[in-house]
Amino acid sequence: MDHAGDSAAFCPLYQRAAELIGGRWTGAILRALLAGRARFTDLAGSIPGLSDRMLSERLKELEAAGIVTRTVAATTPVRIEYHLTERGHALNAVVQAVSQWAELWLPHDEAAAEDVTAQPPAQH
Amino acid sequence: MDHAGDSAAFCPLYQRAAELIGGRWTGAILRALLAGRARFTDLAGSIPGLSDRMLSERLKELEAAGIVTRTVAATTPVRIEYHLTERGHALNAVVQAVSQWAELWLPHDEAAAEDVTAQPPAQH
Repeated sequence: MDHAGDSAAFCPLYQRAAELIGGRWTGAILRALLAGRARFTDLAGSIPGLSDRMLSERLKELEAAGIVTRTVAATTPVRIEYHLTERGHALNAVVQAVSQWAELWLPHDEAAAEDVTAQPPAQH
Repeated sequence: MDHAGDSAAFCPLYQRAAELIGGRWTGAILRALLAGRARFTDLAGSIPGLSDRMLSERLKELEAAGIVTRTVAATTPVRIEYHLTERGHALNAVVQAVSQWAELWLPHDEAAAEDVTAQPPAQH
């Protein structure tokens, strides 16, 4: 884990990971998958404001990155499920770290208001 | 820390944090700041492919989010420095988690193949 320790050096792996995980909606989708949601409609239903088109796009992106697998069961109607790969499950540590930082350091009203700059500069 | 534990629930704080941290270049800039780089030119120089305009934009974003402070020393020429706030330093756990995941789970050739820039695939 030499590289992880040397945070002075630019690391394209790190950058790729940060941007992959931080993509619009991706964080929320990963949380839902880690919580065991598997069906497209369950995933869509658990994330307010996320359109089917966007969910589909993000899942394809995660599949291409080897983070999610898509399985199709030949039932009637077909049952399509998404599951995290081993690589995807390993993201749990990242999701937990982000959750904890957000919980500790982002004031709740600030998130609700979206635009941080419109908020008073106070807290913590 | 209720939200962090219940990863089934949609959490706007989490989403905001993930998108903030995962913004294009933001991860690399945070790493450089955590490594102690403070001056604009040092930051710019440590991240291949990052334009001054983009760096300036990202720093303003981080400042607005209370993650970075900008100080101007009245020297000649003026010395402008950027430092992480307490909130910003707390992101170290996130940066480490992302680094470790990237190092373990992203194949090196994959990252090199990424458009990550016109840099040689060498340094991590």
